[in-house]
Amino acid sequence: MRKLLLAPLLCSFMLLSAFLPLVGGLHAPLSVRQDFPLITSPASPIYLDSSATSQKPTFVVDKMREYELTTNSNVHRGAHKLSRDATDMYEAARDKLTTFINAPSRRGVVFTSGATHSLNLLAKTLATNLEDGDEIILSVMEHHSNIVPWQMLRDFGGVSVKIKWCNLDEEGGSLDYEHLATLVTPRTKVISIVHTSNTLGCTTDTKKIARIKAERAHPDCVYVVDGCQSLPHMPVDVQDMECDFYVASSHKMCGPTGVGLLWGREELLDSLNPFFGGGEMIDEVTTEGSTYAALPGKFEAGTPCISQAIGFGFAIDYLNSIGGMAKVHEYEKKLGSYLHEKLSAVEGVKIYGPSDPGERSALCAFSVDGIHVSDIASFLDMENVAVRAGHHCTQPLHTYLEISHTARASCYVYNDENDVDEFVNKLRETIDFFKSTGA
Amino acid sequence: MRKLLLAPLLCSFMLLSAFLPLVGGLHAPLSVRQDFPLITSPASPIYLDSSATSQKPTFVVDKMREYELTTNSNVHRGAHKLSRDATDMYEAARDKLTTFINAPSRRGVVFTSGATHSLNLLAKTLATNLEDGDEIILSVMEHHSNIVPWQMLRDFGGVSVKIKWCNLDEEGGSLDYEHLATLVTPRTKVISIVHTSNTLGCTTDTKKIARIKAERAHPDCVYVVDGCQSLPHMPVDVQDMECDFYVASSHKMCGPTGVGLLWGREELLDSLNPFFGGGEMIDEVTTEGSTYAALPGKFEAGTPCISQAIGFGFAIDYLNSIGGMAKVHEYEKKLGSYLHEKLSAVEGVKIYGPSDPGERSALCAFSVDGIHVSDIASFLDMENVAVRAGHHCTQPLHTYLEISHTARASCYVYNDENDVDEFVNKLRETIDFFKSTGA
Repeated sequence: MRKLLLAPLLCSFMLLSAFLPLVGGLHAPLSVRQDFPLITSPASPIYLDSSATSQKPTFVVDKMREYELTTNSNVHRGAHKLSRDATDMYEAARDKLTTFINAPSRRGVVFTSGATHSLNLLAKTLATNLEDGDEIILSVMEHHSNIVPWQMLRDFGGVSVKIKWCNLDEEGGSLDYEHLATLVTPRTKVISIVHTSNTLGCTTDTKKIARIKAERAHPDCVYVVDGCQSLPHMPVDVQDMECDFYVASSHKMCGPTGVGLLWGREELLDSLNPFFGGGEMIDEVTTEGSTYAALPGKFEAGTPCISQAIGFGFAIDYLNSIGGMAKVHEYEKKLGSYLHEKLSAVEGVKIYGPSDPGERSALCAFSVDGIHVSDIASFLDMENVAVRAGHHCTQPLHTYLEISHTARASCYVYNDENDVDEFVNKLRETIDFFKSTGA
Repeated sequence: MRKLLLAPLLCSFMLLSAFLPLVGGLHAPLSVRQDFPLITSPASPIYLDSSATSQKPTFVVDKMREYELTTNSNVHRGAHKLSRDATDMYEAARDKLTTFINAPSRRGVVFTSGATHSLNLLAKTLATNLEDGDEIILSVMEHHSNIVPWQMLRDFGGVSVKIKWCNLDEEGGSLDYEHLATLVTPRTKVISIVHTSNTLGCTTDTKKIARIKAERAHPDCVYVVDGCQSLPHMPVDVQDMECDFYVASSHKMCGPTGVGLLWGREELLDSLNPFFGGGEMIDEVTTEGSTYAALPGKFEAGTPCISQAIGFGFAIDYLNSIGGMAKVHEYEKKLGSYLHEKLSAVEGVKIYGPSDPGERSALCAFSVDGIHVSDIASFLDMENVAVRAGHHCTQPLHTYLEISHTARASCYVYNDENDVDEFVNKLRETIDFFKSTGA
């Protein structure tokens, strides 16, 4: 058990020794790459699918293993030492996340099974705040997880609400804030908009959206931010963002699947009905009825995702240890620009999203003249380059852009310019092959 | 990647070589004990809190680690090899679970984040089948996770339903089936009753309950079984049980937290609205509305608990490898009888549940004359014996039994009679100490 006390020291050491890797340039992160066996092992692909899920550093996987074999217990419930130790680690992970997003307190930091769970929790519990005729505003670039829960609220929630869709700007590169301002009315009760698009790579201006909300929406309107593609890649300060709720998933940021984040303003979370009923979210249960626990327990019914939350905490330790999110962001900005530049130079390739590389995250969704993107991805796969082809869970965006599918190459801290070069070279070969066969 | 192909062979080998451990008697499972570092390491407690969560064998933890470092990818989405391999492992876990519970097909086997999620999914989606005046029948021994979701349905679900409570038999040892028969009427639309009680240790007769339902309830009435404390401990055949839905959690049966099971009859699952909206549970999404995927994807929105489901599958492999559930059950029956016999012999101890050891699982909830159970558990903790004290998430049962709290010792495959002896000896010392101090 005592070994666990070394974890903070170890992390401090890692932080000092590993601060430099992400600073030096596009060749620098070799020491980071070596933390990821699925990036460096001989059979590993050039992995450019991190927007779907990131690879996990050995540090996180091994710390989770250590927890399972030395400290595993149910939390909050036991009168015994193992249970107290497991509870301490679980709650320490909450503290790490609280600091990581600069939440005003740990009470508003809720562990869910993932961002999809977080968004469904919000759609289902916010339903009671809505009346017939109220409006929910989404953008056309939302992920299905930020569309379908609201459609289900409209269709099955017992309240007749209207969903309104905010378009993109003329270039199709980011949100059209002027259009947003025209959509928001005193009947608007929910604005739920992605922070960084998983397809376009643009990042929305949360303060601008918060200002439009403050000026035009119903006073009780809440602003929800889908942070799945921002929390892994940039410093996030939920207070500075001026949002009401923020959601994200661990598995896209070096942590395990099975755990996500719901952050909300305490007074709002306090005012909502609970979502899941069960153990630990209650104060007292009788056959007549139940009273509910205080935050954050109110929204964490049953045995929580204990080892997964602990793993999420270690993922945060890891990201801090390689330089912290400002450095991660700086590195990814450079790498993203390099990817955009190289890919743009390939004849027949069309990249979606902002044309200014400075406004992009390190991903490019693209199509190729005359070749189906599924064929592109399959050929790249045979060359051991892992990209994704499909609608990336943004079908309405694809419809808006008048395309059925795109291919997507998405980077993370372990990628470097060699990966980009290799990908672009293999893409050129693929295109040449198709051209040569007249396909 | 090729190493993974060895897993089935390895399991077959383990099955042959490890078949005997659970057959021989109460001293036999040494080879099983050695699979659990938290059972055998020098600092480990006598762990008697497996009803809260089981310990995990190294096999499961290491197989999950191997997955994370060699195969991790998002599932169902990718055009690349890693994604196909991860999908194969995730779906193989579903196949293992399908066989383990003898489900008629894999389509009715849904991965959730845990049994609490499964029960909330049912309560929320079954709501649309209910009308004002309909009845839901629970028993007084239900876990909060099988109470609060139904109370929330009643209180926030927009339909005025009545919850009726089935009592225990005269001994307070099991369900009163005659009382159940009097409660069920043509207005009864849901009967949701625990399979094995986490406090009393009794197991309900599912066929008897199914018959009462068939004879007396509304034709559309569904019978839900909370199997959290049965699936880890006995062979379960959901078809033979004659239930409509069955739920359980991985973490109580050698697998990780963060994943659970919802099994349901296909035609019923097909008829329900989806629960979480998001990626992968859709067929098509437009700004107008969405169509939903077929089972089981319909209920698995977003990135699922991938490595957790895979770990759940390895937990099943492990349980099969040590002899299978019939042997596990046989061993635990013997150990449970031994625990009951030894604990019954301690003066001042009152054990709740069936007096016939043959009707009990390997757990005893108990109180001690004149000493608070929290004090008992704390003193045992100081002696490195881990039991739990509290209401075990069954407050209504405790109210029914007119006690506020009980202590509980619960066993699993890695426990043996030495553990029981040690626990009972330390309990005697604790009681003697309190008596000597006149407390």
